[in-house]
Amino acid sequence: MTLSKKPVTGMKDILPKEMKIRDYVIGVIQDTYASFGFTHIETPCMENISNLNCKAGGENEKLIFRVLKRGEKLDLASAVTEDDVADLGLRYDLTVPLVRFYSNNSASLPSPFKALQIGPVWRADRPQRGRFRQFYQCDIDILGEASNLAEIELITATTTTLGKLGFKGFKIRLNDRRMLKAMASYAGLPESDYDDIFVILDKMDKIGLDGVKEELVAAGYDKESIDKYVALFAGMETHVNDSLSYIIDELGECLDPEIGNGLKEIMASVDSAKTCDFEVEFDPTLVRGMSYYTGPIFEVAMPEYGGSCGGGGRYDEMVGKFTGQSVPACGFSIGFERIVMLLLENDFKIPDDRDKVAFLIEKGVDAGRLADIIKEAAKLRSEGKQVMVSRMNKNKKFQREQLQEQGYTEFKDFYREELKH
Amino acid sequence: MTLSKKPVTGMKDILPKEMKIRDYVIGVIQDTYASFGFTHIETPCMENISNLNCKAGGENEKLIFRVLKRGEKLDLASAVTEDDVADLGLRYDLTVPLVRFYSNNSASLPSPFKALQIGPVWRADRPQRGRFRQFYQCDIDILGEASNLAEIELITATTTTLGKLGFKGFKIRLNDRRMLKAMASYAGLPESDYDDIFVILDKMDKIGLDGVKEELVAAGYDKESIDKYVALFAGMETHVNDSLSYIIDELGECLDPEIGNGLKEIMASVDSAKTCDFEVEFDPTLVRGMSYYTGPIFEVAMPEYGGSCGGGGRYDEMVGKFTGQSVPACGFSIGFERIVMLLLENDFKIPDDRDKVAFLIEKGVDAGRLADIIKEAAKLRSEGKQVMVSRMNKNKKFQREQLQEQGYTEFKDFYREELKH
Repeated sequence: MTLSKKPVTGMKDILPKEMKIRDYVIGVIQDTYASFGFTHIETPCMENISNLNCKAGGENEKLIFRVLKRGEKLDLASAVTEDDVADLGLRYDLTVPLVRFYSNNSASLPSPFKALQIGPVWRADRPQRGRFRQFYQCDIDILGEASNLAEIELITATTTTLGKLGFKGFKIRLNDRRMLKAMASYAGLPESDYDDIFVILDKMDKIGLDGVKEELVAAGYDKESIDKYVALFAGMETHVNDSLSYIIDELGECLDPEIGNGLKEIMASVDSAKTCDFEVEFDPTLVRGMSYYTGPIFEVAMPEYGGSCGGGGRYDEMVGKFTGQSVPACGFSIGFERIVMLLLENDFKIPDDRDKVAFLIEKGVDAGRLADIIKEAAKLRSEGKQVMVSRMNKNKKFQREQLQEQGYTEFKDFYREELKH
Repeated sequence: MTLSKKPVTGMKDILPKEMKIRDYVIGVIQDTYASFGFTHIETPCMENISNLNCKAGGENEKLIFRVLKRGEKLDLASAVTEDDVADLGLRYDLTVPLVRFYSNNSASLPSPFKALQIGPVWRADRPQRGRFRQFYQCDIDILGEASNLAEIELITATTTTLGKLGFKGFKIRLNDRRMLKAMASYAGLPESDYDDIFVILDKMDKIGLDGVKEELVAAGYDKESIDKYVALFAGMETHVNDSLSYIIDELGECLDPEIGNGLKEIMASVDSAKTCDFEVEFDPTLVRGMSYYTGPIFEVAMPEYGGSCGGGGRYDEMVGKFTGQSVPACGFSIGFERIVMLLLENDFKIPDDRDKVAFLIEKGVDAGRLADIIKEAAKLRSEGKQVMVSRMNKNKKFQREQLQEQGYTEFKDFYREELKH
């Protein structure tokens, strides 16, 4: 019986070098979010399939790994659909489990509840370079805070974390789902088509304003509305430094003043609490895919990296919809895997001031002497040093080189008898 | 559409209080094992079902959660067995994945390779109090070290970790698979029945020596052999302080001297490197369930807790058997969930010297002032404090009480206008 050596298709083994960076990032995340009062929680990796198929997962619901029923529950002979043979599934994100967790445990949780989750999720995506079927997500959520203090804390905590990890020059793009709607409404576009229109708007990064216009025309919308809509975005170019005020002025009564003021407040507070070099920018083209967002939405744009390195927003209606208990909610998902990837690519050096000593012991050292050596290692370890105790190989030079590669700088050799010089 | 609130049957949500202890334990484990030169690795939670059914999992192979095939691969209509519909499964331990990991990556790993793994495993056990279908395992393994330096390092690292977590007065029970065999051989028991005999011996804790004798008699073994076997264990009572020497003397030529000396060496070294109060004891009744062990075996016996809090041993033949490449191996699995449970039951206080401050902000504070408050919070956080920024509730007293329960000791109120005294 031989094992297949490779990991399951689309999943990967994580070697010590990457793992060290992952652990470091997790440590910085936990430490920083704790300083903002977030508490760590965990849910099982499996959920009932009906929860996973609750429509809050969007396209991810098509990518669920289902878990086979067991024992008497499994009746293969009469099974017709997947639901007949599988009633559990692996989670594809941490949001659906969080909402279930909150409704299950809210009686014993403080309000507002500030949650931190870090853990693996699974999606049966087509495997491709840099995209895996098991990957970590890292989510922070505030449940029970209706004011934009939630957005401010989430964004500040995340930018502080990124700063501690050495990132700089990144952007927080900020918008509001209600702003998107107000802009479409101002242009006279049909409300029933907003979601389709926003899908087109979302392509701005790739196809530019002209491309967006073309697609809106192709979709058959009213020419005047399209022109008015496109003019709004075009006007941004001459209002780079006051784009939010410009849009608020243009939209006039189409926009509830609270929405514009809310965004201004978020930007002012996030900006004032900066602990590293980044910009927070209003960006009316930011859409964010998930339809459950109800208010401010935000995303991290990293200069070294084409796509986003995390994002989130307010989803006030989701908890109530699924649990019957209305609770304001706002969350930020950090692009954990992308951050790790960027740090690996940049050959990030983890701050580690632990001295690394290797003890190499010749074969045949007697029991009493071995005990002394192990005791000496224990002493150095208790002083904060890292001590590798190994048998001395025949090829001492190669062994040393291997240990040096692992960061060992001090070496101590122990022979069968004390060497006499 | 409502969500089912409960976690999947047999699995649990982990609330902040327990999570804090889990994170603390993981931190101590990572830190301590790192000081011994162990490096953290991770494998995917899923493995190919053929790997999981490789016979190294013992009874656990009956408890696998299988993952449904997807897309074209799934043909329910013609499916007859579970293998027809599921080719992946969730891991039930970390040993099989480690062996696969090693054979997949050995070219880029140092030798010896000291691995630390911490992560969830799944077993579809009958749910019962304190036993869950998803739980964490924490394994350390040394691959490529043939000498008992591996056992010494594994046991020393684990006892150091337990000491740092505040445990004391525990015992490390130590035996050797080859010692078990030598004792049975000395008594003249049939070699083909060793595994069955050891299953009976393993019950010593529960049924005592008389019970073991009765079961051996009932199984029909030769009376003289049983008497000789039982006499060996009975003789232990008068050799409490030198039980290993006693057994070595009794067994005489039935035991390879290297085995007895090896155990003595392990005991002397572990004892000399003690950093907390515990005993390492030779225990010829220790069996350890898994049949893959080939040499020394060990277990942690915790006085507060009836069962074992971790155990392991040498399994020199497993890597070669499954990969064709013979590699000596030795591992220790710490009872992570039991340790967490004991700490929770003992109301363990995590050392945490971070000051906890709560900022309570009245509604209606203007944007400029809010930005100042957020900036002040950022300053305190950068000084190492934990700052919770919250809206002021109507019931300020209740809000304070809730925050005090979460550990906040300092409070700062911010009103719409600066209060004038």
